[in-house]
Amino acid sequence: MSLTKTFNKGDLLYEGKAKRLFRVQGDETLVFQEFKNSLTALNGLKKVDLEGKGELNRNISSLIFRYLKSQGQSSHWVADSGPTGMVTQKVEIIPLEVVVRNVIAGSLAKKLNQAEGQDLEQAVVDLHYKDDSLADPFINDDQAIYVLKVVSPENLKQLKQLALTINGHLKKLFWGVGLKLVDFKLEFGKLPNGQIILADEISPDTCRLWDVSTGEKRDKDRFRRDLGDVLENYQIVWKNLNQKYGASL
Amino acid sequence: MSLTKTFNKGDLLYEGKAKRLFRVQGDETLVFQEFKNSLTALNGLKKVDLEGKGELNRNISSLIFRYLKSQGQSSHWVADSGPTGMVTQKVEIIPLEVVVRNVIAGSLAKKLNQAEGQDLEQAVVDLHYKDDSLADPFINDDQAIYVLKVVSPENLKQLKQLALTINGHLKKLFWGVGLKLVDFKLEFGKLPNGQIILADEISPDTCRLWDVSTGEKRDKDRFRRDLGDVLENYQIVWKNLNQKYGASL
Repeated sequence: MSLTKTFNKGDLLYEGKAKRLFRVQGDETLVFQEFKNSLTALNGLKKVDLEGKGELNRNISSLIFRYLKSQGQSSHWVADSGPTGMVTQKVEIIPLEVVVRNVIAGSLAKKLNQAEGQDLEQAVVDLHYKDDSLADPFINDDQAIYVLKVVSPENLKQLKQLALTINGHLKKLFWGVGLKLVDFKLEFGKLPNGQIILADEISPDTCRLWDVSTGEKRDKDRFRRDLGDVLENYQIVWKNLNQKYGASL
Repeated sequence: MSLTKTFNKGDLLYEGKAKRLFRVQGDETLVFQEFKNSLTALNGLKKVDLEGKGELNRNISSLIFRYLKSQGQSSHWVADSGPTGMVTQKVEIIPLEVVVRNVIAGSLAKKLNQAEGQDLEQAVVDLHYKDDSLADPFINDDQAIYVLKVVSPENLKQLKQLALTINGHLKKLFWGVGLKLVDFKLEFGKLPNGQIILADEISPDTCRLWDVSTGEKRDKDRFRRDLGDVLENYQIVWKNLNQKYGASL
């Protein structure tokens, strides 16, 4: 598959904490998504720039979207472009962060005073409302549907089902390179025809990935918790994924 | 109906912020629930004692439980006893606060930056995990079932359905005395045979009640927000409920 194509970046549409979105000149159905080197935590209060992080996350995200495609699971991915660019289908983002958890960790462990690392008998799906000014608050289904009105009951059901299906694929993908998928965050968007597809990115910025043998964290918690070697661990994830799956995708 | 019977209070079983629970001598299937005068907010950080509050809340709760019974909805209520006592069936409390909301207010309004007072097109059910040491955190269904394991999927479904049915009855009850039921908190317990029934109390401590004509708050927000006349407003609620429903229940 030819992954990299040349697209002409148009005007900036939106700048987020980890990505910039641009128009694609001559095609209003596409968006140019540029992965930034900046890494943030605590809703942007903690921030660093890591040279090469954008490229690693573009590479990892792209490989994952292509892997999902090979498993029959569509996403907004169209092509890579340059070292840090990804051309995607233009979607209307549903302002929900859909978090899937296989193991108790992070904010959930803290909130409920549970030890980190406990396997969940069944994957748990959490929702957060995407709003920086409110610090992306944790919400439930009723609040998403009837208070915020950002999703219909049918769409939310579909979205959770999609998230769980994707979880199945991702667990397998990462397990293949000796990584345990602890939890991760997805975002979904709507195509003009109303179809809901996977959007945003999937990378060590948005997943918790623990080495199966050593328990070593290979994700953004290295930054959040000041564990050091952030980029080195992102590189290990990319190297191993690319070695195992790169040739076939 | 004879409401008041004499029961012999046994040992203290549990002391909460607003109630004390005692054994009932000679009957292990019952509990003596004594309503305290203390009023707390901010997870106990703000506290006051209001002479007569316990009696008012016992009276209001008892009337509501009897009203629900007249509508075919069972609860743990068995009889009143003395000025502040209520004898109830002994249940194993499910450690969930089930909050039903008809109008956006309180913590929900704050969290999602919504104006207070907006009617919801459909009642919203929120869950909190009953744990003072964690400040009763807001949780979702998956967390209740698979992380905390305090309820089965079937029981949770039943519990939410019960909460919505009770909401229908309570809205009608309060509307009859010129009060809008904004939101309220329920707790449920399990009988030894596994049946789930309504427990705890329903009072201005656990409901938001707004005067339909004037918008005046007649609930614990008078205390939380330092609006004054707390007891006077609880008295209005009791007087009007008793006047309208007291004779027939």
